[in-house]
Amino acid sequence: MAEPLFKRLVLLGVGLIGSSVARIAMERGDIAGEVVANARTQATLDRVMELGIAHRVELDPAEAVKGADCVMFCAPVGAFAALAEAVAPYLEPGCIVTDVGSTKQSVIRDIAPLLPAAVHFVPAHPMAGTEYSGPDSGFTTLFQGRWTLIVPLPGSDAAANEKIAELWRRCGSMIEVMEPAHHDRVVAIVSHLPHLLAFTICGTADDLEDESRQQVLRFAASGFRDFTRIAASDPAMWRDIFLNNREALLEMLARFMEDAQAMARAVRWGDPAYIEESIKRGRKIRRSLIELKQA
Amino acid sequence: MAEPLFKRLVLLGVGLIGSSVARIAMERGDIAGEVVANARTQATLDRVMELGIAHRVELDPAEAVKGADCVMFCAPVGAFAALAEAVAPYLEPGCIVTDVGSTKQSVIRDIAPLLPAAVHFVPAHPMAGTEYSGPDSGFTTLFQGRWTLIVPLPGSDAAANEKIAELWRRCGSMIEVMEPAHHDRVVAIVSHLPHLLAFTICGTADDLEDESRQQVLRFAASGFRDFTRIAASDPAMWRDIFLNNREALLEMLARFMEDAQAMARAVRWGDPAYIEESIKRGRKIRRSLIELKQA
Repeated sequence: MAEPLFKRLVLLGVGLIGSSVARIAMERGDIAGEVVANARTQATLDRVMELGIAHRVELDPAEAVKGADCVMFCAPVGAFAALAEAVAPYLEPGCIVTDVGSTKQSVIRDIAPLLPAAVHFVPAHPMAGTEYSGPDSGFTTLFQGRWTLIVPLPGSDAAANEKIAELWRRCGSMIEVMEPAHHDRVVAIVSHLPHLLAFTICGTADDLEDESRQQVLRFAASGFRDFTRIAASDPAMWRDIFLNNREALLEMLARFMEDAQAMARAVRWGDPAYIEESIKRGRKIRRSLIELKQA
Repeated sequence: MAEPLFKRLVLLGVGLIGSSVARIAMERGDIAGEVVANARTQATLDRVMELGIAHRVELDPAEAVKGADCVMFCAPVGAFAALAEAVAPYLEPGCIVTDVGSTKQSVIRDIAPLLPAAVHFVPAHPMAGTEYSGPDSGFTTLFQGRWTLIVPLPGSDAAANEKIAELWRRCGSMIEVMEPAHHDRVVAIVSHLPHLLAFTICGTADDLEDESRQQVLRFAASGFRDFTRIAASDPAMWRDIFLNNREALLEMLARFMEDAQAMARAVRWGDPAYIEESIKRGRKIRRSLIELKQA
């Protein structure tokens, strides 16, 4: 077995992503010698110990990070600023701080200024997920064959960046390096906008007069069903993502709304060629995904 | 084995739905003594014979329906008026005409006036589907545990309506009776609008400047991937559905756009409570679906 990358890995948050990393680290042994879990509630930490997915749990984040050579922020991104403030004075020199947040400009804005100079910061984003949350929802194959985006800071320590990349490789991920603003635009269209649309359509359906709503639920065909699966995702996490990727999300939503209005106009005035062309573009994208083995 | 419901069942169209019905009818034997398939091209009919999912194929719809006691319209709904015109003079008295179209007001408008008085018309809509199309895409369990909506005409023959209901029960479906306008509203929100949104977001992504588009494809996370699955559906079929359920679809889209704009406003001005509440409604709908075993 390879030497563990870290002596002590501290996970600040053990939801879907954090608890999956915990499970992998406990199972493989070559990621960290010790896995410490921190969460907002003792009930979550009790559950982590019952599940046996960390060596040790610690309710106070400042206590949790002491002696760690890697601290991974796995909470909703809206909690990062307060968490960083709480732990910054207790970070060891040379410690690598990283995160798994879905937004990168906001995470850099919220964490980087608070960290001591001797600490390395490596923002990252494993692009994997399900609609489930909490410590029970994690599993060891979550990152298998999926991308993790590493978003290194200018002038950052190459060895620290590489250690985080290697951590994700050992979790099964493929690695890509990306610039923060570009990252936020790509995930806005790939992930944040689809979630916003799914949440919204569920609300639209929920507003229908009572008889229709009952039948919507009863007759949910495959279209709507897939949307509700996405819409079942964790509310606090997604609230934070939307608010912290505001500019990119609003731009992608504005583009989408223009396109949806153009489609509405084609339906109203009966433009079959426009409608068919729009649908064919969807198929083309799908085919590309299949070729790239992301489907 | 129960007596076959029909002596000769003619399928006008053998895509996903038509070829699934054909497979079930051939396998069970208690739906029809003879299964005849019609399609627009000889190539499709050759494939049907290769697959062995009909007793006989017939390229001319007028020839196909001769001697049939059940004719099922399984083509895209935009083709129904021309098909009805072609077959109406050749329908036997007592024959039951039915369809599987996703819109019901347009189907009734297009077919009912053309049928001879001695023919029974029973509009129906099996709510099942995948993103695949063509005679190879069908399978015998497609309708298992899914709803088929029967939309009987006022004053129609109760025995004919019941025979079509029984056909779908033998296909594995559950049956619900619905009024045409109400049907069209329910499917607009449950199925047509989700498809329109999925097609649209794929187009929006496809319009991004080249570097982003490549990365969208590369990093498609679960949200976008599910949308492209829906968006891979048959373009001609969906074009016809949109144009033939115009009023209900435009109304549901307008409601959705208002809700999406309200969400955009909450993101822009930073209203976390509104965003979280909207997301929680999605989860609630999802939970209801799971309780109703439609998820």
